[in-house]
Amino acid sequence: MSLTVDLNADMGESFGSWSLGDDAALLEIVTSANVACGFHAGDPDVMLQTMRNAVTNGVGIGAHPGFDDLRGFGRYRMNVPHATLANQIRYQVGAAQAMARAADGEVRHLKLHGALSNMSSEDQALARVCYDAALSVAPDLIIMVLASTAQQRAVEEMGARFVGEIFADRAYNDDATLVDRSKPGAVIHDAALAGPRIAEMVKAGAIITESGKHIETGIDTICLHGDTPEAVEIARSVRTSLEGEGIVVKTFGT
Amino acid sequence: MSLTVDLNADMGESFGSWSLGDDAALLEIVTSANVACGFHAGDPDVMLQTMRNAVTNGVGIGAHPGFDDLRGFGRYRMNVPHATLANQIRYQVGAAQAMARAADGEVRHLKLHGALSNMSSEDQALARVCYDAALSVAPDLIIMVLASTAQQRAVEEMGARFVGEIFADRAYNDDATLVDRSKPGAVIHDAALAGPRIAEMVKAGAIITESGKHIETGIDTICLHGDTPEAVEIARSVRTSLEGEGIVVKTFGT
Amino acid sequence: MSLTVDLNADMGESFGSWSLGDDAALLEIVTSANVACGFHAGDPDVMLQTMRNAVTNGVGIGAHPGFDDLRGFGRYRMNVPHATLANQIRYQVGAAQAMARAADGEVRHLKLHGALSNMSSEDQALARVCYDAALSVAPDLIIMVLASTAQQRAVEEMGARFVGEIFADRAYNDDATLVDRSKPGAVIHDAALAGPRIAEMVKAGAIITESGKHIETGIDTICLHGDTPEAVEIARSVRTSLEGEGIVVKTFGT
Amino acid sequence: MSLTVDLNADMGESFGSWSLGDDAALLEIVTSANVACGFHAGDPDVMLQTMRNAVTNGVGIGAHPGFDDLRGFGRYRMNVPHATLANQIRYQVGAAQAMARAADGEVRHLKLHGALSNMSSEDQALARVCYDAALSVAPDLIIMVLASTAQQRAVEEMGARFVGEIFADRAYNDDATLVDRSKPGAVIHDAALAGPRIAEMVKAGAIITESGKHIETGIDTICLHGDTPEAVEIARSVRTSLEGEGIVVKTFGT
Repeated sequence: MSLTVDLNADMGESFGSWSLGDDAALLEIVTSANVACGFHAGDPDVMLQTMRNAVTNGVGIGAHPGFDDLRGFGRYRMNVPHATLANQIRYQVGAAQAMARAADGEVRHLKLHGALSNMSSEDQALARVCYDAALSVAPDLIIMVLASTAQQRAVEEMGARFVGEIFADRAYNDDATLVDRSKPGAVIHDAALAGPRIAEMVKAGAIITESGKHIETGIDTICLHGDTPEAVEIARSVRTSLEGEGIVVKTFGT
Repeated sequence: MSLTVDLNADMGESFGSWSLGDDAALLEIVTSANVACGFHAGDPDVMLQTMRNAVTNGVGIGAHPGFDDLRGFGRYRMNVPHATLANQIRYQVGAAQAMARAADGEVRHLKLHGALSNMSSEDQALARVCYDAALSVAPDLIIMVLASTAQQRAVEEMGARFVGEIFADRAYNDDATLVDRSKPGAVIHDAALAGPRIAEMVKAGAIITESGKHIETGIDTICLHGDTPEAVEIARSVRTSLEGEGIVVKTFGT
Repeated sequence: MSLTVDLNADMGESFGSWSLGDDAALLEIVTSANVACGFHAGDPDVMLQTMRNAVTNGVGIGAHPGFDDLRGFGRYRMNVPHATLANQIRYQVGAAQAMARAADGEVRHLKLHGALSNMSSEDQALARVCYDAALSVAPDLIIMVLASTAQQRAVEEMGARFVGEIFADRAYNDDATLVDRSKPGAVIHDAALAGPRIAEMVKAGAIITESGKHIETGIDTICLHGDTPEAVEIARSVRTSLEGEGIVVKTFGT
Repeated sequence: MSLTVDLNADMGESFGSWSLGDDAALLEIVTSANVACGFHAGDPDVMLQTMRNAVTNGVGIGAHPGFDDLRGFGRYRMNVPHATLANQIRYQVGAAQAMARAADGEVRHLKLHGALSNMSSEDQALARVCYDAALSVAPDLIIMVLASTAQQRAVEEMGARFVGEIFADRAYNDDATLVDRSKPGAVIHDAALAGPRIAEMVKAGAIITESGKHIETGIDTICLHGDTPEAVEIARSVRTSLEGEGIVVKTFGT
């Protein structure tokens, strides 16, 4: 039986008159789309259009909530009280469900964005607050977690349905967290490098860190970024490398 | 068989650190609550708390979307394209549904807010855009319309379920639109006046305009304002006057 | 003595993580920059960077305030009370002055943005409210007005210093207002057409409308757009055509 | 020669349709007003009105910038890059200067708000970024610092003009930072207690901490809060206690 893996990317990150990312190109490569919910990026028009395009391309739809901070694109760490954060997650998930309904689709998964994802990958209680909140309004959601981090420990503790992801273009620390974006080498810009690296991890069933350490983990999905100049090229390289190794690329759980 | 009528009020209009209105007092008087959805007022915390209180008081919950304008409280007319407006309605309704679910309640009705309500009471196509959008994500919603205006003509054209409302503290023009807030006498501040005036209209089955004209119309619900100093006093006066005339006050459709 | 004319363009319209326009290319062509002030576009980082680049290129800096509406990019007409609007203009002008100071420059002119500009080109009282507000905090500002519109009548009534502008890529109605963006032919996309057309107007000292009518007016500056795909090409065409006709292109008042 | 001290309070914290604080009452008690600049609270209308009232009452005006976060009222710690933060400070100070000019006043001092103040009271480099930014656009500003914290060390390092403040209603840790709001006893609600406590500190020329420790420091101004139910009562108690001890209450530097 063959290995399978999902490819996901953040999408719908345009806002009003401002465009971001090449969603059209990515939608031909990925199998799951994480759609921004209007707090850090996206707006109702962008959400509907993105979800319609996902449905047309047979790509699974995820809600991708972040901090309430358009200016910082959800990338600034914010010290929001847990109860408030839980309600902000509920609100964004509900809005995403409505837009998905209008797009003749449905929200299948949840993935946290930016600083909120970083913080919850280090803080199991925070991750749990976010995931519990999302499930309280959408009990069938599958949670997409950063493999081997506090996010994964949270869903395991909750007994929630989840898939584990690794990043195609981010370097890993030995504790399975992402190397901070401000550090050199944190983001991989070379498509020729990214594809084989990921294929190697999927085959190994392990994250391979900057230092070469193998962290065994379920790799259900690969995160492809959409907001860098080389994003589409890297995405194609990853898909090509995976398929070249006989790994089947398809939406998780299908 | 006795006359029945619903009493509704806008609620959940606080935002962040700012409080507005005496929702606790109003929830003991009204039978339906129109909950702001975060675009002109309200935030996820306020929405959840307001809906929880509504559930506790046996008060029906409505989504109360408005223009995307916190600064102007949704009271500035804005020339938003129809497609964008439709998506903003969908987004707000979806968010409201999620918060209602978290409050162990459900969104039963929809009522437009502020300038959006004013504009759609004069523009049937605009009203229809908003109502179609809301129903596209929540087909069971009952639409609360300003009786005898373009809002009512829209729902009649659509064949949608609706209830007609009149305002307890607003004067009427002879075409059944509200007298503009900037004009003298537009808002009734005297509780002793408001109650009997409304009871008279409900018994007459007609809006009685500033000029004394009777406009026959179904009066299913009375709108009580919550954001004026005398709001609670007027609300009590209206309920007392109605019950004094033997009219049963209860949530519409129950 | 030779004819001279200024070339201006809207700039600094990026926001947070979102980029818009090719400011670097335009700054090599124009002689005045209208810098967004954070209400409809721009943010403090973008403002400072844009103004620094203007200073480096010897380009005059203008404050370019708009409605408080990032989502709609200041393009939705909004019914904001005059007193509030005046204060929003003051606030934006003051913020622009601070950023200019930090960029070792100064705000020389004021130009209204988007729907606010459209509305004030039809409404002399509204134009005057905005211009009076700006001058109340920056008395030395030169007002950039849409030539032959209510904006010009307002500054003439006020006795304020002003320059008159026409648009390089917008068609004109016979009353000197702009043809609405939603109408065909409203925006000129053909660079080969735009340049000679503008040179003809400058030499004629008149706006030439869609119907061919000549409206005599002082043409001190030409507005070049920066937010369309062909913007830079049109800008170059205009500058080349003007200089080809012996017209000197330089910042007004210098 | 008699002891003198300034009394300051945060003001202008209303926003749009939402009111906060009893500025009118406080303006009869304080001698300096810290006016919110629109990022965490306040809007151009509120700023102008507040500054006009300050001028009428002979109260000194300060710019009171905070994080760009209306929802959290600037009370959430945010990890904003220094360069961006510097520009946000410049922008807010410039806007405040414009509104002060329109109010026939001037911005005399700067005080940081909320989480930004807390963070910079612990982080000298951050404090310096904020103060340098403010002075780059308004070189005559007097910086109001939390006495004996990293804020004071920053202005001392810079050689900037400053005044040191202590809080009337906040308990102190032994390192002169404020006890976190979430801890019991952090905020003093009893007016009868607050007045004598502050008079004691001013006479002692020292902060007296929760544990009773005396930290000698220049006390130039006392911060009175405006956003708690008992705010005005505490403010009156402080002023009465100070004057009862023969301490002269007047605007610093006058």
